[in-house]
Amino acid sequence: MQAVADVPEVLEEYGELTRAVVSEYLRPREPLRHLYGLAADYPHRGGRMLRPSLCIATARVFGADIDVAVRVAAALELLHNAFLVHDDVEDESEERRGRPTLHAQHGVPIAVNVGDALALIALRALIDCRTRLGPRLGMLVLEETERMARESVEGQAIELGWREDNATELADEDYLKMVLKKTCWYSTIYPARAGALLGSGGERDLDRFVRFGFFLGAAFQIQDDILNLVGDSRKYGKEIDGDIREGKRTLMLIRLFTEAAAPEKRRLSELLAKPRCERRESDIAWVRSLMDHHECIEYSRRTGHALAGAAQAECERLYRHLPDSRDKRFIQALPLWVLERR
Amino acid sequence: MQAVADVPEVLEEYGELTRAVVSEYLRPREPLRHLYGLAADYPHRGGRMLRPSLCIATARVFGADIDVAVRVAAALELLHNAFLVHDDVEDESEERRGRPTLHAQHGVPIAVNVGDALALIALRALIDCRTRLGPRLGMLVLEETERMARESVEGQAIELGWREDNATELADEDYLKMVLKKTCWYSTIYPARAGALLGSGGERDLDRFVRFGFFLGAAFQIQDDILNLVGDSRKYGKEIDGDIREGKRTLMLIRLFTEAAAPEKRRLSELLAKPRCERRESDIAWVRSLMDHHECIEYSRRTGHALAGAAQAECERLYRHLPDSRDKRFIQALPLWVLERR
Repeated sequence: MQAVADVPEVLEEYGELTRAVVSEYLRPREPLRHLYGLAADYPHRGGRMLRPSLCIATARVFGADIDVAVRVAAALELLHNAFLVHDDVEDESEERRGRPTLHAQHGVPIAVNVGDALALIALRALIDCRTRLGPRLGMLVLEETERMARESVEGQAIELGWREDNATELADEDYLKMVLKKTCWYSTIYPARAGALLGSGGERDLDRFVRFGFFLGAAFQIQDDILNLVGDSRKYGKEIDGDIREGKRTLMLIRLFTEAAAPEKRRLSELLAKPRCERRESDIAWVRSLMDHHECIEYSRRTGHALAGAAQAECERLYRHLPDSRDKRFIQALPLWVLERR
Repeated sequence: MQAVADVPEVLEEYGELTRAVVSEYLRPREPLRHLYGLAADYPHRGGRMLRPSLCIATARVFGADIDVAVRVAAALELLHNAFLVHDDVEDESEERRGRPTLHAQHGVPIAVNVGDALALIALRALIDCRTRLGPRLGMLVLEETERMARESVEGQAIELGWREDNATELADEDYLKMVLKKTCWYSTIYPARAGALLGSGGERDLDRFVRFGFFLGAAFQIQDDILNLVGDSRKYGKEIDGDIREGKRTLMLIRLFTEAAAPEKRRLSELLAKPRCERRESDIAWVRSLMDHHECIEYSRRTGHALAGAAQAECERLYRHLPDSRDKRFIQALPLWVLERR
């Protein structure tokens, strides 16, 4: 696999450019205390800036002007933050980027409205691109964004449905289909598609980016879920084992249901059927140790590696005919970087 | 004032046309049980169809083709339903159109996600208009819609902030400014502006519709809040006195704070500071009787009448130079219709 040397540098540089545009759209204005002040909270907590950087790098590889790519990337980052605010409400998460979630601080009603505001600010940023892109290409970018957001909402519905139904009979394919929609579309598929759209000035064969984005995004999500179990909470920014507390159907949990003996499976199912507040710390620890016993993390790590390898192969297919550049090396290095992330 | 004879007929006819397009966008698809099946719930519960009808009538008065007007009206109706789902979560409302609210039936997480899906379906419907409108006018309609949604979210933030802060020192002007954003923009200002934009093929002087929409929309909202106190719950579709239970800052409640004696005001403030579930029925009845004692409903009714009169005058100014038509008579009759609504 490609060395990851260029990755931190590019994330730093494109992240900085994106943050500058994001900040333009989050300037203090009224109503401040219950809306725009809070809308700026998550974006200003930081983040790795993988999504906007992939969007900008792809756009440049295909010949786009960096200025317009940064503006689309900023819209994506704003929409990502809108998703985070609503996801945290929907998953009843307690921490985000090392601090209490927005709804934990300000209540669900205000958080839901702030998420709506962030989505609208993202839409505004996309509409503003029309002056640089012209109305036709501007509309194509909007269409791409609408498709991506739809996939995300559908993925979220599938995952919420599993919790609602206390699903215990899921297969790896179910998980991967959900992750394709919930994570990959907005994290990796859209950045590549939107970048190529900008670089080519309106190319329509964007479906060729779906496989690469799927493999890369799924490897990314699995690594993220592993870090939720084994990571350092200060670096990770969320509660360790939070996914187990939330009853989230990760690949590890799905594997556990496959591997567990019948009595374990029964206890696990009963435990997940309880409301979150009734799950005790000893229950969480039991699930966690059972995952170790059945080597669920190791299994998921291997799956993540296989996906990253597939992403690498797809990447070669997509980009080998293009001249060498830092942007190309950045994209090629992402599959390995995703796995090395701590 | 204009007779309201044409109003039910036009609402019926344009409502039917709008519902047909709305239904196209809400056809059953996967994920059905936790997303698209639920997204179709509120729209299929019915509604007066004031907003889409005003949009279509205005578009036709200014010469637009009815087909494209109906599609923009359908997008507005979809977005209206998206707002309703999130508003019900944010206001902790129990009933909508005579049935339990979506979050009361399916929980907050799924309801928030369904609201997001409805907003995206509305965006899809607007993007689809580009084939009829061309990319330039299509983009202008999108811009108008983004502005309107932003005003709505800001209005909602102001109202949520008042509850959060337990605001008791509000004036009529504060209420009207909030209603301008929260209700008027999407209910009356946008339908008029979008209609004129379609009819004129891109006219930019849309600000002349703001006053008419404000007066009409504010009269509409005040009448709606009055019906929450004195209406027939079967016809009204929400719990009677629900606004008092929710601590909603209606014109009646704001008036009550102005008129109440100091000890009453103190008790009222303490009562509203409690979480909703701790407000007893006897407390609600006490607030309700105090409103009667201080003639708050009568005061609000008079304010609503004055606003409707102002809407009528603005309407004359905007439309008198245009030839007589059923669409024009419909628009002119709305101020009176709003007051006569039960």
